[in-house]
Amino acid sequence: MTEQIHGGMLQDSPISLDFSVNINPLGMPQYVKEALREAVDRGEELWEKYPDPLCRELRERLADCHRVSAKRIVCGNGASELIVAIVRAFQRRKGTDSLACVLPVPSFLEYERSLQAVGAGVYFYHMKEEENFMVTETLLEKLTPDMDVLFLCNPNNPTGSLLSEELLKVILDRCGKNGIAVILDTCFWELAQSSLAEEDRAWDYGNYLDLIVLKAFTKLYAIPGLRLGYCICSDVNLAEEIMAQVPCWNVSGMAQTAGLTVLNNKENIDYISQTKKLIGRERNYLEEELQRLGMKVLPGQANFLCFYSQEPLYEKLLGRGILIRDCRNFRGLEAGWYRVAVKGHAENSLLIEQIRQILKIPEPIKDP
Amino acid sequence: MTEQIHGGMLQDSPISLDFSVNINPLGMPQYVKEALREAVDRGEELWEKYPDPLCRELRERLADCHRVSAKRIVCGNGASELIVAIVRAFQRRKGTDSLACVLPVPSFLEYERSLQAVGAGVYFYHMKEEENFMVTETLLEKLTPDMDVLFLCNPNNPTGSLLSEELLKVILDRCGKNGIAVILDTCFWELAQSSLAEEDRAWDYGNYLDLIVLKAFTKLYAIPGLRLGYCICSDVNLAEEIMAQVPCWNVSGMAQTAGLTVLNNKENIDYISQTKKLIGRERNYLEEELQRLGMKVLPGQANFLCFYSQEPLYEKLLGRGILIRDCRNFRGLEAGWYRVAVKGHAENSLLIEQIRQILKIPEPIKDP
Repeated sequence: MTEQIHGGMLQDSPISLDFSVNINPLGMPQYVKEALREAVDRGEELWEKYPDPLCRELRERLADCHRVSAKRIVCGNGASELIVAIVRAFQRRKGTDSLACVLPVPSFLEYERSLQAVGAGVYFYHMKEEENFMVTETLLEKLTPDMDVLFLCNPNNPTGSLLSEELLKVILDRCGKNGIAVILDTCFWELAQSSLAEEDRAWDYGNYLDLIVLKAFTKLYAIPGLRLGYCICSDVNLAEEIMAQVPCWNVSGMAQTAGLTVLNNKENIDYISQTKKLIGRERNYLEEELQRLGMKVLPGQANFLCFYSQEPLYEKLLGRGILIRDCRNFRGLEAGWYRVAVKGHAENSLLIEQIRQILKIPEPIKDP
Repeated sequence: MTEQIHGGMLQDSPISLDFSVNINPLGMPQYVKEALREAVDRGEELWEKYPDPLCRELRERLADCHRVSAKRIVCGNGASELIVAIVRAFQRRKGTDSLACVLPVPSFLEYERSLQAVGAGVYFYHMKEEENFMVTETLLEKLTPDMDVLFLCNPNNPTGSLLSEELLKVILDRCGKNGIAVILDTCFWELAQSSLAEEDRAWDYGNYLDLIVLKAFTKLYAIPGLRLGYCICSDVNLAEEIMAQVPCWNVSGMAQTAGLTVLNNKENIDYISQTKKLIGRERNYLEEELQRLGMKVLPGQANFLCFYSQEPLYEKLLGRGILIRDCRNFRGLEAGWYRVAVKGHAENSLLIEQIRQILKIPEPIKDP
């Protein structure tokens, strides 16, 4: 079997249900599907022409949505491309000195990989199991003036934990005072139980520190195959430095079309609120059922849950055609930790049923 | 008007004919179009799933075609992504020392941009107008042991010149002796008048130097909007070092599908030979006509031609709805140099006719 580096990696076993990737259970919105079909028929526009390397129309539209200047926005071939580009932009500022980066773990593996790729110094902040692997005030001790960059994943992958607004404010304040840039990865934000308005307040901090808010279309709109992410920088210079680190024509014509379609569609707000509702309900269901089966479930706020099982589950579920995320390659998580996406109710109850069978726990007695 | 950094950049004026980008005049092959339509209908596979981050199937197929191990191949979101990744991999090897790179100019702008992005030292080899801007044996003087990397674009963009096999061999020999890695960009190779077999001999040099042969689907298959390039490395370690510098999931599902469709299609060899025939014939036509109009035309071998005009042409052609590539932002080319793609005969003769009108040259007397 191929090593599972991320969720969704191809497996040799046949998979009928993939709980290892965290995309919107509602699937790609119908209006985006239709727009792409039309686009394919137009064809020439998207395939036989170079895409706009500056993504001008898309950035203008994003700028409207976020009420910032388009010059502060950089689009990428997925958020993962931007993670690499941002790290490189900061490393470039340091010249021949090594970038010093604070990285709370466990967290998304691409941060560490990108830092390694430039030879940066990585200072881990180990979140503790007894604190549900959440960032606490002890992070502040790590935010010393000799540090250059802090990564914050909010909600965090794979734990699903969401920073309180108060703690986020204190962290950003400290970073501002000590000249530490913050990369705030909010790729799962819209899929978590928090209002959109709340997040916008993060922009206010851009006045006194280097802040980059990272976002993706991938998860919310279920288009990971299309590759589209973007970041909003606290100032224009920073955006230009990041743009200098991405290759020309990085965002495909198809992805630019999909992005614009989403942002211009009136049904979009409905789609997001339906998504939040479904995820909220189903995450509660999964959490309760997993706990009932004896799992330790982290209090996640996103469209996935992270839990610990005494009984090994990965191979056994795979044998039943279900792929979950084995978290043992996340720094700070040991064997026994798993991550599952929140999907539709039928899939979720099937997952619970299969785990119940593996654990040989009898079905609960149903009310007649 | 927006500054023209590359060909094909959006213009404010309406364009009816775009001679500024160099893609196959036959357009995207019909079998690829059909495969993509089918793929769009399947949908889920390509959009709602993450693409294989390792591009395994595509790399296996490319490995078959080039008779090398798949482990030596890296796929990219267009060749431009790989240029950046290759430069970064070599910079990473140097640690905190600056990479020293020999760059013949005029050439493709992304080389210099990528080198600047990592802060590399760039040592220009200025090709001379009196030598038709071709690489000559004087390049050897630049290939000293303190150099790390040599870029060679073959055929060269924007001049279209092709290195002789003898000179290429001498250059590779020197690089091997002096520990200089070679990035051989052959993105326009299949569109030039040379046999496929000839190029394969470049692989032989991989035994005693770091050699990377860069290739693209973009130009040959007219799919610049889809983004797909790859490189073949002289050894597995080098390939892994480059792979460490590209973001995860860098090649979209759509692009992987298009690549596989091309490689698996039996009509593909016909399509390439038809392309070569058309381009050979039309390039000769354009060259003769441009010379007849008093232009100095460089002896290009690719699907584009570079020429000098005393009379400014860019704005005047744009006013007539025709976009050509103003080459003045290529290092080493001054105002007056232009690049035009070789297109179908109707378009090419229309271009010639429009230039003739701009220059107020009477039509040649046709035989009755």
